[in-house]
Amino acid sequence: MVATARAVVCLSFWLSVVQVRGSYIPPMMNKTIQDLLRHYSISPKERFNGKPVFSKEPLTGKMEGKRVLMGGILDTYEKLIGQMLKQQPTPAPQTAGSNERLTPANPPAGAGTASDGSVRWGLNYILQRVQALRKNYYQEQKTLLQKLKALDEIQLNNRVVQSKALWELPWLYEEASSLNDTIKLERRMRRRRRRQARKVKTRLTA
Amino acid sequence: MVATARAVVCLSFWLSVVQVRGSYIPPMMNKTIQDLLRHYSISPKERFNGKPVFSKEPLTGKMEGKRVLMGGILDTYEKLIGQMLKQQPTPAPQTAGSNERLTPANPPAGAGTASDGSVRWGLNYILQRVQALRKNYYQEQKTLLQKLKALDEIQLNNRVVQSKALWELPWLYEEASSLNDTIKLERRMRRRRRRQARKVKTRLTA
Repeated sequence: MVATARAVVCLSFWLSVVQVRGSYIPPMMNKTIQDLLRHYSISPKERFNGKPVFSKEPLTGKMEGKRVLMGGILDTYEKLIGQMLKQQPTPAPQTAGSNERLTPANPPAGAGTASDGSVRWGLNYILQRVQALRKNYYQEQKTLLQKLKALDEIQLNNRVVQSKALWELPWLYEEASSLNDTIKLERRMRRRRRRQARKVKTRLTA
Repeated sequence: MVATARAVVCLSFWLSVVQVRGSYIPPMMNKTIQDLLRHYSISPKERFNGKPVFSKEPLTGKMEGKRVLMGGILDTYEKLIGQMLKQQPTPAPQTAGSNERLTPANPPAGAGTASDGSVRWGLNYILQRVQALRKNYYQEQKTLLQKLKALDEIQLNNRVVQSKALWELPWLYEEASSLNDTIKLERRMRRRRRRQARKVKTRLTA
């Protein structure tokens, strides 16, 4: 009896967790992805070859680092869907009566099936969702990624660049060293505040 | 009199700040950079054209973001100095009596002057300092940057990749949405703890 009750509680908890987690994806988005997957079909051997495109493993570590990586993943999704849209055949010229704009609020009949128009619509819709998430919550990471990309464009074999970079090194070396100290100090202060709060609490309860 | 005293205080403060900031750079490193700058000389017009290689402006924002960017800058310095070393003429074969290894503890006579050997030594020494700083304090950022670089290598026009990425999107979209909520929750909890600590302190002093 106890075991059954425990199982029911566990199941309810698991279902609630799944529901909470699932709540982030709008049902329309979920359905569109499933429909698109029917168009972009590959063999199970290819799908489950143990090499995911985006490894789940790197999402450990500090929260802000995770956010930067997630910003990078969303950025890659934008490029990937952009590429998938480019590979779609050019839409046929609109005929009379077909001049309605395809929007998420106005999906085409049979959206997400194998027809070219619906695949294009589905990809555009998914792209909009990814862009919205990125714009609303990952704007700061976008700026950071742009700055990191700019570093790749530095002309390493240009003598003027080499000389200027040497000139800038003392300031940057100091900044890199002091940044580390600032973080250590912040952590120490936070620990100290927490310790003090605990002490005060103990004195109050005593 | 007051103005003079104030000026003295300000000057002492400024000097102490400069000293504290300057303390991160070993004098040997500073000297080596100055020596190398004599070799990598460019005109003042080129140096002060208002376009630094590494903008100082991006170092605003969240601390962890700053660290990621700084990790990227140190990574670029490693590549840049590597390139400068490659551009150096091949060292002449060692003659009798010149078989001592050039290390920071054992700089060549006239290190950092225009001779090829001393420029090579100077560059190697600076490279070692940058690598040490990165290894000691920016290891986590290095891993993150590697993961970000790996995103650039994803084959966007490969159908299997496209299909697998679509398949992985629901999990990643959820993760990206929930990550944002987790950070918000953490901040709220931190603010709450701080408010509680303040309240307790007020009650104790009352």
